[in-house]
Amino acid sequence: MVKAILFDVFGTTVDWRSSIITELEKFGDENGLSADWSATADRWRAGFRDLQAKIARGERVWITMDQIHREVLDALLLDLGATGLPEQEVAHLNNAWHRLRPWPDTVKGLTLMKRAHIIGTLSNGNLSLLVSLAKHGGLPWDCVLSTAMFGTYKPNPEVYLGAVRMLDAEPGDVMMVAAHAYDVDGAREAGLRTAYVFRPDEFGPGKGEDPGDTSRFDIIASNFVELAERLSE
Amino acid sequence: MVKAILFDVFGTTVDWRSSIITELEKFGDENGLSADWSATADRWRAGFRDLQAKIARGERVWITMDQIHREVLDALLLDLGATGLPEQEVAHLNNAWHRLRPWPDTVKGLTLMKRAHIIGTLSNGNLSLLVSLAKHGGLPWDCVLSTAMFGTYKPNPEVYLGAVRMLDAEPGDVMMVAAHAYDVDGAREAGLRTAYVFRPDEFGPGKGEDPGDTSRFDIIASNFVELAERLSE
Repeated sequence: MVKAILFDVFGTTVDWRSSIITELEKFGDENGLSADWSATADRWRAGFRDLQAKIARGERVWITMDQIHREVLDALLLDLGATGLPEQEVAHLNNAWHRLRPWPDTVKGLTLMKRAHIIGTLSNGNLSLLVSLAKHGGLPWDCVLSTAMFGTYKPNPEVYLGAVRMLDAEPGDVMMVAAHAYDVDGAREAGLRTAYVFRPDEFGPGKGEDPGDTSRFDIIASNFVELAERLSE
Repeated sequence: MVKAILFDVFGTTVDWRSSIITELEKFGDENGLSADWSATADRWRAGFRDLQAKIARGERVWITMDQIHREVLDALLLDLGATGLPEQEVAHLNNAWHRLRPWPDTVKGLTLMKRAHIIGTLSNGNLSLLVSLAKHGGLPWDCVLSTAMFGTYKPNPEVYLGAVRMLDAEPGDVMMVAAHAYDVDGAREAGLRTAYVFRPDEFGPGKGEDPGDTSRFDIIASNFVELAERLSE
């Protein structure tokens, strides 16, 4: 019996890419900028992941996800030759990560899983960002846990074990759910139970992650409603 | 404009006393024990507060609220001459603090405040205890913050300022709500905005706290629905 289920958020619970492209297009229109906004969204995300990985390896001092997004965004805007933009506009654009849409199955699946389990986030997002996303998307979390509480990023094992301790649980009582193998593998190595969810359009239509051999995960599912069904079997 | 509202839980959001008395009476019946269960409930709570205050002053190593409740309960049972009870029964009784009823106005008031504000706990309860109470009572928190995240107890200022930091806010953007002057005063001294809610029956019918001069609080209210109304004025 799984006591608590912890969910990755960006890519697993919410569709960052289509939301960010929409916001970038709007920003471009309003500021007279043109660019390949899909590619810009991908570069923004990739830049986040690079910097986050550096911090997780201890090569940079910890900063929040909002701060990482802003650092990467500033570099992207410089590349686009977009200088002298009003600070308020840039801050609003950076805040687009607070306004991401859930995947269509997310709220239904979470609501089903909430009946028999504690459901919470375990995300690299800072708490205020995760709370914004929950309010924006109606995500019915029982608790919002952030790697910021542990001063590092996934897949540092301290993140998974710290969350387990906060829940007064044993690693085997807690399941980590993500659409990213590095995250699910990190949880698995820390002794947690695992579910891998396919998000085949995360990086663009038909561009999901290939996790390799999925037999190492306890559950695989194609969305959160299917995950809820598998958990109740 | 208050960005986030943080609530004390035990006594402010939930009615610990009537719930605990009911559980103690049931425990007594099932184990052939008789005692003044109302007085026992009060001693349990007072014992918790004494030990918590010791920890907040640094006179004892930090342990969770569940662990404090158990230490006090074991002493109370010894006083009642109740020895040799099955561990499962005693653990279930200690877990009564996970099954407390909200005050009648709590859920309605929180639901109203959630529309325009982030609402969260800032309680001495450990996270799993706070999550249990939320699921048991249908408390619609946006986030569940515990002093356990900071390794100390209220009114240590680090608790209030740590919560503010987690929310990426300034102290003046966050309001602390409690029915206990020591807690609201702690938040006030840390620079937070404050609301004092009267819970006139917390310690028994007609036995609420007297906070003294209430002009030092930003808002006073007689329940959570009135607090919601005051905040929307």
